[in-house]
Amino acid sequence: MKVNSRRKFLATTAILGTSLAVSASVLPKPKKKQLVHHVFFWLKNPDSQEDLQQLIEGLKTLEKIETVKQIHIGVLASTEKREVVDTSWQVSELLFFDDLEGQLIYQKHPIHLAFVEKCSHLMAKVVVYDALEM
Amino acid sequence: MKVNSRRKFLATTAILGTSLAVSASVLPKPKKKQLVHHVFFWLKNPDSQEDLQQLIEGLKTLEKIETVKQIHIGVLASTEKREVVDTSWQVSELLFFDDLEGQLIYQKHPIHLAFVEKCSHLMAKVVVYDALEM
Repeated sequence: MKVNSRRKFLATTAILGTSLAVSASVLPKPKKKQLVHHVFFWLKNPDSQEDLQQLIEGLKTLEKIETVKQIHIGVLASTEKREVVDTSWQVSELLFFDDLEGQLIYQKHPIHLAFVEKCSHLMAKVVVYDALEM
Repeated sequence: MKVNSRRKFLATTAILGTSLAVSASVLPKPKKKQLVHHVFFWLKNPDSQEDLQQLIEGLKTLEKIETVKQIHIGVLASTEKREVVDTSWQVSELLFFDDLEGQLIYQKHPIHLAFVEKCSHLMAKVVVYDALEM
């Protein structure tokens, strides 16, 4: 290989190397199968805006728990009233964890325990659904 | 202002302008309040792997509906069995829409109607929760 050709080869290799590195970094990561933890709350005083706000403020503290990857706090949406739609609850808490262990750490976390301590007197009923993504 | 100073001033202003434009483009967008549509299915034949797979395959077709922003199809997770946890269902479908209209478009969409037509005979019970993010 002549000196010029070798330089050209090395330069091309370097460019290709950079290009491959960039391609690898933009490739979509394999989707992680997350644990979906959805809790519905029925308030003891369903018409109390104060109780509603207190529960929502309590739920907001949960996002600080490091294993909580996503948090969505919701209230009843005004979708069409169909027979299959449960419209009897007042507040929902939807959390995503990376795995079962993340959910277990959350259950025992001081922030979660403080939330239960502070807000459980507001609740008439709680229903939890734990789903593992397919 | 001398010519040199003026040039310097203009150059600095241009750099500052660019810098401000970059800062504005990387500012986080205000979080959109989404509609969370969570559906739980109880199968007529809860022990049938075939029926389970048929329902899951049907649910997977829903992601093609343009107003569906996120889809998470799940099965019962093996979290600790507490009194508040409902473990009686078999499949869950969690969808995110940008707004109420997105959910209405989904309900009437030919892909959704085809899913209902093809899979509703598998279902013993369906419960829907529609939550609007706070």
